[in-house]
Amino acid sequence: MGDAALPTTGKAACVTNPGADFGVEVRNDVPVPKPGNMEVLIKLTVTGICYSDLHYMLEDLPMPKMSDSGVVSPGHEGIGHIVAMGDNIPASIGLKMGDRVGLKPVWSSCNSCMLCISEREMYCPASLQTGLQKPGTYQQYVLGSADHVMKIPEGVPDEVAAPIMCSGATIYRGITESGLKSGDWVAFAGAGGGVGHMGVMYAKAMGMRVIAIDGGKEKGDMCKSIGAEHFVDFMETKDVNAEVVRLTDGLGAHGLIITATSPAAYRTGIGMLRTSGVLMSIGLPSIADVPSIADPLSLIGKNLKVTGTAVGTRNDVRRALQFAAQGLVKPVIEQFPFDKISDAVMKLKSGKVAGRCVVRFDE
Amino acid sequence: MGDAALPTTGKAACVTNPGADFGVEVRNDVPVPKPGNMEVLIKLTVTGICYSDLHYMLEDLPMPKMSDSGVVSPGHEGIGHIVAMGDNIPASIGLKMGDRVGLKPVWSSCNSCMLCISEREMYCPASLQTGLQKPGTYQQYVLGSADHVMKIPEGVPDEVAAPIMCSGATIYRGITESGLKSGDWVAFAGAGGGVGHMGVMYAKAMGMRVIAIDGGKEKGDMCKSIGAEHFVDFMETKDVNAEVVRLTDGLGAHGLIITATSPAAYRTGIGMLRTSGVLMSIGLPSIADVPSIADPLSLIGKNLKVTGTAVGTRNDVRRALQFAAQGLVKPVIEQFPFDKISDAVMKLKSGKVAGRCVVRFDE
Amino acid sequence: MGDAALPTTGKAACVTNPGADFGVEVRNDVPVPKPGNMEVLIKLTVTGICYSDLHYMLEDLPMPKMSDSGVVSPGHEGIGHIVAMGDNIPASIGLKMGDRVGLKPVWSSCNSCMLCISEREMYCPASLQTGLQKPGTYQQYVLGSADHVMKIPEGVPDEVAAPIMCSGATIYRGITESGLKSGDWVAFAGAGGGVGHMGVMYAKAMGMRVIAIDGGKEKGDMCKSIGAEHFVDFMETKDVNAEVVRLTDGLGAHGLIITATSPAAYRTGIGMLRTSGVLMSIGLPSIADVPSIADPLSLIGKNLKVTGTAVGTRNDVRRALQFAAQGLVKPVIEQFPFDKISDAVMKLKSGKVAGRCVVRFDE
Amino acid sequence: MGDAALPTTGKAACVTNPGADFGVEVRNDVPVPKPGNMEVLIKLTVTGICYSDLHYMLEDLPMPKMSDSGVVSPGHEGIGHIVAMGDNIPASIGLKMGDRVGLKPVWSSCNSCMLCISEREMYCPASLQTGLQKPGTYQQYVLGSADHVMKIPEGVPDEVAAPIMCSGATIYRGITESGLKSGDWVAFAGAGGGVGHMGVMYAKAMGMRVIAIDGGKEKGDMCKSIGAEHFVDFMETKDVNAEVVRLTDGLGAHGLIITATSPAAYRTGIGMLRTSGVLMSIGLPSIADVPSIADPLSLIGKNLKVTGTAVGTRNDVRRALQFAAQGLVKPVIEQFPFDKISDAVMKLKSGKVAGRCVVRFDE
Repeated sequence: MGDAALPTTGKAACVTNPGADFGVEVRNDVPVPKPGNMEVLIKLTVTGICYSDLHYMLEDLPMPKMSDSGVVSPGHEGIGHIVAMGDNIPASIGLKMGDRVGLKPVWSSCNSCMLCISEREMYCPASLQTGLQKPGTYQQYVLGSADHVMKIPEGVPDEVAAPIMCSGATIYRGITESGLKSGDWVAFAGAGGGVGHMGVMYAKAMGMRVIAIDGGKEKGDMCKSIGAEHFVDFMETKDVNAEVVRLTDGLGAHGLIITATSPAAYRTGIGMLRTSGVLMSIGLPSIADVPSIADPLSLIGKNLKVTGTAVGTRNDVRRALQFAAQGLVKPVIEQFPFDKISDAVMKLKSGKVAGRCVVRFDE
Repeated sequence: MGDAALPTTGKAACVTNPGADFGVEVRNDVPVPKPGNMEVLIKLTVTGICYSDLHYMLEDLPMPKMSDSGVVSPGHEGIGHIVAMGDNIPASIGLKMGDRVGLKPVWSSCNSCMLCISEREMYCPASLQTGLQKPGTYQQYVLGSADHVMKIPEGVPDEVAAPIMCSGATIYRGITESGLKSGDWVAFAGAGGGVGHMGVMYAKAMGMRVIAIDGGKEKGDMCKSIGAEHFVDFMETKDVNAEVVRLTDGLGAHGLIITATSPAAYRTGIGMLRTSGVLMSIGLPSIADVPSIADPLSLIGKNLKVTGTAVGTRNDVRRALQFAAQGLVKPVIEQFPFDKISDAVMKLKSGKVAGRCVVRFDE
Repeated sequence: MGDAALPTTGKAACVTNPGADFGVEVRNDVPVPKPGNMEVLIKLTVTGICYSDLHYMLEDLPMPKMSDSGVVSPGHEGIGHIVAMGDNIPASIGLKMGDRVGLKPVWSSCNSCMLCISEREMYCPASLQTGLQKPGTYQQYVLGSADHVMKIPEGVPDEVAAPIMCSGATIYRGITESGLKSGDWVAFAGAGGGVGHMGVMYAKAMGMRVIAIDGGKEKGDMCKSIGAEHFVDFMETKDVNAEVVRLTDGLGAHGLIITATSPAAYRTGIGMLRTSGVLMSIGLPSIADVPSIADPLSLIGKNLKVTGTAVGTRNDVRRALQFAAQGLVKPVIEQFPFDKISDAVMKLKSGKVAGRCVVRFDE
Repeated sequence: MGDAALPTTGKAACVTNPGADFGVEVRNDVPVPKPGNMEVLIKLTVTGICYSDLHYMLEDLPMPKMSDSGVVSPGHEGIGHIVAMGDNIPASIGLKMGDRVGLKPVWSSCNSCMLCISEREMYCPASLQTGLQKPGTYQQYVLGSADHVMKIPEGVPDEVAAPIMCSGATIYRGITESGLKSGDWVAFAGAGGGVGHMGVMYAKAMGMRVIAIDGGKEKGDMCKSIGAEHFVDFMETKDVNAEVVRLTDGLGAHGLIITATSPAAYRTGIGMLRTSGVLMSIGLPSIADVPSIADPLSLIGKNLKVTGTAVGTRNDVRRALQFAAQGLVKPVIEQFPFDKISDAVMKLKSGKVAGRCVVRFDE
C-alpha cells in the first residue's frame, strides 16, 4: 500500500532527564513503525504542545508510562496524513491512504464496555493514551488505531486542528457536560491559556456570556478580542469572587470552569457561583499541592455542583472540529519549526504562552 | 482451541415459503461455521421466538435480507457457550472458551461513529442484525462478533436470559428512554405479550405504577401476578382511555408504552396521557396498515411527547440482565424442544402466547 | 397611589362579527378598570399582533372565551407602565408605580400545583389567559396579576419587548425544550413569520445552524439577513425534505421546529430529520384541517421525537428578554398607530407580514 | 368560619438557654394566632423532631432567627387540620375548613422568581422557613401559608406523614436530583438516622440497590429490615470504602448520599465511588468542623460529581407522600406524648434514635 515509499527513520523529540530539570532532545533517526492489526501509520505535519506533556516530563503527577526502549515521545495533538494501513480495517470506518487525520489523547479503547459505548471512552479501563502508553505526537511517523483516528474536515488548517484534538475537545466537553445553557454567565479561570482561551471561544459560540479570569494585560487583551464580555485580572483584583458577583447583577456566575493548573482558583472558586451553579474542573494541579474545592455547607446552602472531566471523546472532537470548520472557533497559536520544539516547551513551562504553541514537522 | 471436538454439521430451523403461509423446517445438516477475525462460535442451548421473526417470515415489513445460500435462519435471542474463537480478539473484551454468552439483535456495529459511541449502536448505518443480514439463533452453531456478544451473569438460567437479549433489553430501553420516573403511572398496550409482560416487570421493579392493557382473562391474570396495579381488558372496556384516566385520579397516565403490533393502540393512545405525558412506540405494525399517532393540536395543547425506539444496546442488555440476576424480573416462558420449534412459531403467530416462547436445542 | 390622575376611559380595539369575516373596531370610551387584590393597572404603549389573536377572532379553533359585557379585546403582547396598584402585593415581587412591565399570554396561574412550580405554568388548570378569559392588550388600560407581570430590562425598547412576550418566549421555549444543542442543524418551517423569524435569531444566538423554510423572496432575504445559513423556498423547491437532507451532508436536520400554521409542514416534516431528530410543534393549524405528524414505523426506525409546546413561562420570558438586552435578538417589526390596528390585523390575516406587526397606543 | 370554637391559648415547646446546654420547656399558655391574608390556622396532631431543630437550639450553625417575643418554637414537620382560614385564598388552591394538611420547612416563598417556578423554591431569597423566621411545629396552633400547606392523601396516618414533610421529601429530592437510576448501587452514610433510613426505603422502592452505612447492630438490623442489601458498620469495618468497592464487584457505588451530620463521612466519601459516580450532601455538619469533600484530581480522574441539596419542594413532598400512600415507604418512628417532647429531643441529641421521633399533641 505504498509502504515502499516510506523512509526507515524519522524525526522525534525525546525527553531527557525527566523531572524538574527535564530537557527535550531532537532526533532524526527514530525508526518508522509498521502498522499492525487495525492500525494506520500517520506522517504528521504538526503537533500541539499541551500542559499535560509538561506534567509527564516534570514527573509532578503520577501517570502511566511508555514501556519504551530508548525513545520517549510525548504529545497528543497531532495532524497529518495516512501513509500506510494495517490489516482488518473495515470499510465502515471510512479511512483510506492519504486521508488527513488527527491523533488525540485517547489512542484506543475497548469499544464495548459500559463506559466506551456511553461516550466516556477516556475512562475505559483498557484505554491507552497517546504519548503515555503509546508513542506520542512529538514523533513525525506515528501509529494510530483506525477506530480512534479522527478525520479532519475541509477548511480547518492543520495548525488549527491540532489544538482541537486535546484542548479544544476537552473544553468543548467541559462546557457541554457542565449543563450550562446559552445565555448563562460562565467564568473561565485560566482563560488566557491553551485550554482556557478555546473555552472562551466555544462558550461565546454557544451563546454564553463569558467572564475571563487570568493574569496580565496581554492575556486580558487576547481574551476580550476572542469574545470575553469581561476580563478579571487576578493580579490586580483584590477579591475576584466579589468582582464576578458584581458583574453578574449580584447573583454570581452560573458556572466556573477551571482550566488553570494552579491550586488557587480551585480553593475559592465556588464563592463566585449563584444558586445551582456548577464548577467544572479541567486543569490538573501538581500532586504536590492538591487543593480542596468544596464543603457540604456551601453545596447544600446553594445547591452547587462540583465536577470534573478529562479530555474529549471522538464525538466531542468531531463536534469541536465542526465549530472550527464554521469559522466560529479559531485557536490563537504561536508556531515553531520542529527543531525549535524545545523552545516551545520551555515557553509553556514559563507560563508565558497566551493561547497555544504548535510545532511544524514540515518546517 | 478445541475446534477438533466440533461436529461439522448442526441443527437449524429454516423458513420455507416466506409470506403469509410460511413454514418452518427443522434440519440437522447445516454446516458449522468457522469463526473469522474478531468472531466467536457459539453452541446455543436456547433461543427465544420474537414477533420480529414473524415479520421477517411473513414478509409484511420491509427488512434487510440475509445473502443466504439455502439456509435461512432468523432469531436473535440465543444463549449458549463459546466453543471456538477467531483471531484478534483483545484480552480487554474478556471472553474465553466455554464462556456462557448471549446473541442479541445487533450482531455488530462500527464502534466508532457518532451513534455507536453515544449508546445508539442499533442505529449505526454499518450495523448488521442477527437473523437478518447474519444467520440467526434458530441455528444451533452460530457466529458472534466478540465485541457484541454478551456475557450472562451467574444466577440467570439460559431460558431466562434468552428473552432478555431482545424483548427484555428493548423494553428496558423503552422505559428508560421515555424519561418516566419511579412513582409515575405507566400503561402498557400489549402488556400480555413477550415484550409487554417484561415491561410490566421492569417498570414495577423501577417503582412505577403499572396499568396493563391487553385482551382476555388469561393475560389479565398473568399481568396482575407479575406486578400490574390494574388490568384494562380492551375486549371488555368500552373506552380504554377513559378508564385509564379514571384509574389515575382523572389526570391520565404519565406514559404509554405500546408493545402491541396492532395499529389500534397507536391510533388513540395519546388520549390517555396527562400533561407532558409520553408515548413510546415499540411494537412494529405491519406495513399494510401504518397508523398515525399524533397531531399538533394535541401535542401543543398538552405538551405531549411521542417517540419510539428499537431494541437495546449492549449496556441496556447488561442492565436488563442485572435485574434478572437480582430476581426482580423473571420472564414468563413456555418452553419447546427444538423439533417443536414450528409449534412455538405458529402459536405466537396465532396471538395466543401469554409471555414468551423459548426453544431448547438441548432437548 | 396616583389613581387620581387616571382618566375614566381609554382606547380599545374590539372584535365585531367574530368568524371568517370578523372586523376590528377602535373605541375611545372603554372604562379604565381598577386593580383588585394582587393586581396592577398598566397603561400600555404598544401591543404586538399574534396569529393566535386571529384564531380567536376567526373562531377557527376552540378557545376559552371572555365573559365580557360588551368589550372584547384580544391581544397578549403588551408593554407599558404601572399606573395603579391593588392590595396585598408583597415587596418580594419587586413592583412599584411607574415600572415598565409586560403582559404575556399567561395572565395568572395558581402558583402551587405540580405544573406551576415545575416551569409549566401555561398548563396550570387554573391559569387564565390574557385576551381570552381576561381583557387583552388591544386595550390601552389593562390589568395584570402582580406575580405574572414581567419587568422589562433596560435597553430593550417597548416595541422590541412586545413580541418577546409571546412569540419570542414561545420560540425560546420551543428551542430549549427540544433539547437541540449548539452546533446542531435546526430547520424552521414558517421561518419568515412572527414566531419563526425570532426562532431563527434565537437559534443563531445559541450557536445552532439554521435552515429557514418559507415562501417567497422577501421572507428569504429577511431570514438570511438575520442569521439563517440556508433558505429553502417551499414555493420553488420540489422536495423540501430532500433539500434539507442535502444541505446537512445527507444526514438530515437534528431538529425541525414548525411555526407555520398551515398543515402541510406537519404532514411531511419528520422526513427531513436524522436519527434521533426532534420535531417541535408550535404553530396552531385551524381545527378544520388537523394534520397527522407521526407513525410508529418512522419513530422506531429512526428514534425520532415529536412534541409540542405552547407559549413560555415567566422564566422563558426573562431569558428571552435577556437575549434582546444583549442585542443578540431584535425582532423585525412593522409599526402601526393605534387607529390603524385593523390594518395590522388584516395584513397578518393575508399572510403578507415578514416578521411582526406592533401597534402603538402613543401615536 | 368556626373561629368561635377556638381556644385562645394552646400548647407549645419553647427553647430555653439556647446553646450547648439548651433545654425544652413545655407551655400551655401560648396565644392562638389569627390567620392573615392567604393564611390558614392549623391545629396540629403531631410533629416530627428533626436534627435541624437541634442545630437551631444548639446554635452550632448560623441560621435565620425568629423575631420572637418570648415564644420560640422550632419544628417543621407538622400534621393537623385546618381550623380557620384567612382572606384571599383562591378556590384553585383547593383548601377548606377541616382539611388534613402538613407544614414543611419552607413556610412560604415568592412564587414568581426564577427559582420558585423552576422547582427550587427552598432557595427563593424571599422564602421564609417554618420554625426559623416563622413559629414552628412544636406549637399546637400554628399558621400556614395557603399556597405552601400540603394536603395529606388518604391512607397515610399523621405520624407517618409528619417525617415526610422534611426528612422524607428531603431524601426523595436528594435521590432524584442525584440522577441515580433504578439498578444503580447507592450507599447511604447515616443510613440508620431519621433522614437516612427513609433514603433506604425510597431508594429501594425506586429499584436501586442499597448499601447502608452506620454504626451499631440495632441500626444495622433496622436498615436490613427496610430494604438495604448490605449493611456496613463503620464501627467494625476498618476500611469502609474498600468494603463498598468489594460489595459492588470492585467498581464502587454509583452514588453516595450522606445524611450523617458528622464530618467523617464527607472527608473520605468520594473514595467509594465508581467512574461518573455522584456524592450528594444532605446532612449538615456543625460550623465548628466543616469538612472538605473533593479535590480536582479525583473529580477529573473519575468524572465524579459532588453536590448537595436542602429540603424538598411542594412537588417533592407530594411525590414522597404518594410512595407512603402506596405502602412502599413507612418511616420507622418512636412516638412521644407532647409533655415528653424534651425526652424526644434529648434522645435525638444523644445519637441513639434509629429512625424518627414523632411527638403527639393529642396524647
